[in-house]
Amino acid sequence: MKRKDFLKIGLGTLGAATIASSCVPEDNQGYTESNGAPNVISNRKYRWKLVTTWPPKFPVLGEIADLYAKWINEMSGGRIEIKVYGGGEFVPALEAFDAVSSGSADIGCGGPYYWVGKSPAAQFFASVPFGMNAQQSAAWLISGGGMELWREVYAKFNLVPFLGGNTGVQMGGWFNREINSIDDYKGLKMRMPGMAGKVIEKAGAAAMLTPGSEIYTNLERGVIDATEWVGPYHDYKMGFHKIAKYYYYPGWHEPGTNLEFFVNKKLYDSLPTDLQTIMDAASLKAHSWVLGEFEAKNGSYLEKILAESDVQLKAFPKEVLSKLREYTKETIEEAIANDPLSKKVYTSYNNFAKQSQKWSILTEKAFYNTVQPD
Amino acid sequence: MKRKDFLKIGLGTLGAATIASSCVPEDNQGYTESNGAPNVISNRKYRWKLVTTWPPKFPVLGEIADLYAKWINEMSGGRIEIKVYGGGEFVPALEAFDAVSSGSADIGCGGPYYWVGKSPAAQFFASVPFGMNAQQSAAWLISGGGMELWREVYAKFNLVPFLGGNTGVQMGGWFNREINSIDDYKGLKMRMPGMAGKVIEKAGAAAMLTPGSEIYTNLERGVIDATEWVGPYHDYKMGFHKIAKYYYYPGWHEPGTNLEFFVNKKLYDSLPTDLQTIMDAASLKAHSWVLGEFEAKNGSYLEKILAESDVQLKAFPKEVLSKLREYTKETIEEAIANDPLSKKVYTSYNNFAKQSQKWSILTEKAFYNTVQPD
Repeated sequence: MKRKDFLKIGLGTLGAATIASSCVPEDNQGYTESNGAPNVISNRKYRWKLVTTWPPKFPVLGEIADLYAKWINEMSGGRIEIKVYGGGEFVPALEAFDAVSSGSADIGCGGPYYWVGKSPAAQFFASVPFGMNAQQSAAWLISGGGMELWREVYAKFNLVPFLGGNTGVQMGGWFNREINSIDDYKGLKMRMPGMAGKVIEKAGAAAMLTPGSEIYTNLERGVIDATEWVGPYHDYKMGFHKIAKYYYYPGWHEPGTNLEFFVNKKLYDSLPTDLQTIMDAASLKAHSWVLGEFEAKNGSYLEKILAESDVQLKAFPKEVLSKLREYTKETIEEAIANDPLSKKVYTSYNNFAKQSQKWSILTEKAFYNTVQPD
Repeated sequence: MKRKDFLKIGLGTLGAATIASSCVPEDNQGYTESNGAPNVISNRKYRWKLVTTWPPKFPVLGEIADLYAKWINEMSGGRIEIKVYGGGEFVPALEAFDAVSSGSADIGCGGPYYWVGKSPAAQFFASVPFGMNAQQSAAWLISGGGMELWREVYAKFNLVPFLGGNTGVQMGGWFNREINSIDDYKGLKMRMPGMAGKVIEKAGAAAMLTPGSEIYTNLERGVIDATEWVGPYHDYKMGFHKIAKYYYYPGWHEPGTNLEFFVNKKLYDSLPTDLQTIMDAASLKAHSWVLGEFEAKNGSYLEKILAESDVQLKAFPKEVLSKLREYTKETIEEAIANDPLSKKVYTSYNNFAKQSQKWSILTEKAFYNTVQPD
């Protein structure tokens, strides 16, 4: 609001800084409960630290942390100021979870599967190989009981999680050879973190945890034969298409990775209803924005990659996918075997997935099978 | 916030009703501009009317109007109270657009294709046969320039539109006969509104505009041979599966229908930044909730329909879809021929769709082709 508009409204206003409480008329110190919301606005001012797990200014994922902070500042009328730190600027990227849990930071932004060492159940809120895509997993979280489970898992760490984005289906990766049978995974050195890394190891590959900053050099020098990263937008910026002779395969390992904001629970619980709902709505606005950006940018950058390089688009043979799916089942069984909370979360996830897949055959699958890029 | 929590915080507070402006310290009447947000909160109170195009208490679509009102009330700390009217309660359902445009109501909730009589361009913000699905059209709106065009189209009517939900791919409908070739549409009396109605008329069908309340009786008595409605959740409540011998076909005519909130533009422009951003975030929170509910409920109600009836799930033969697609192209050409704004909107829509479809072949399509409901 510009100052002149503000003056035009011409009503009493309140600075966000402290006002002497004696100024508040007696009959306004309570609030009506007719609509369930407090009829007062606390003028308390908050200054929070948001720590991300992304490199500073990372496309989409870094940008959304800045937007989220801006939106919350706007919606709270300036009462909440959030300073955003890229990975390593306040704490190392993968210490964001601990920093917010302990209260040394207030909010974190990351991917739930980063915290599998804290709780194996966390990965099911991110993405599961051959699991649900963006639309399905958001439905599980919002309308299928998933969010309640996510809150249960994170509550043990004094955190409250929020859905804050999705990457869409990630690309299967860049390979220096064709994958024509499951045997082609034997001896393949591939950068592949998380659960999918365990899956390709069952197929005989060596799963590597190459940091993002070293992937290009390691690919170019043949230290690794293949890598997954994100999708055409991020892959283009990494320059993978400039390395001679590469095959680009669709994904199976992350069919729609949820991103998250997580807030210190003690802090969140202390907030009035208006600020709690503002934080929730900001995260879902972020969710829509992130998925929109990935869908739009990946589409246009795929065209750039194909126009500027000799990269060949391929598809995994059915037999390969079928084997990888079999290994995925084994990997999940192993992951949940000794952790009752993981088993509870995966059971909910899997029941919802089965129902969604059946519905998708009539709808989204049928839709994609009729579309033609003409 | 409970009163005791409120007292515990123990800070100066402000009732939402009028405060004597002399109480506001001089140096708080302005605001810092450092973060782009006003550093003040106006204590002005608003009471708005929201008119929906849905029957009162309509599943999902009626529910979301109530939730949207509740969230905005919460986020504004009770400053905005919104009273929700079902279709016919304040104005007839399809007069919502005019009512908000003129200012007799403040907010409307509907589907953009209802306003094709006002501007033919409106339909492209809802759904286009063989067009984009929920994920793709949200990306066009959020990250592909679609929202700017939507605002341009509605600005002429003194309205500001917001994305407020999506139904997902709608079912193609219930048929009392199998559709084995395009000739089976000849003489078929089908309830099918909008652009898709024109498409099936090109195939020789009679497109009817049967109101929702009369569909069941008209189907049962053979007044119509077929109908589309929404999806299993809403269709189940209509009881279509109880009518003997029905075939249930996947959809092509509404691959992801966007729902909307629209706000009186003069009112919206007069709001301070905090309330404008709150309204925007509430609509995107609504968007996520609606799509989640449709995905979850349609999945579980499809199972109920199949368990409780002899309905047969079918798929349209490729040749039929190919013909319907051809007729769709003609219908769109006719719709945009004499309206430059429609042509501008459709060109943007179609360019984004082409890029998205190419990207989807590697991602979502490949994903759906690997999933198995096992």
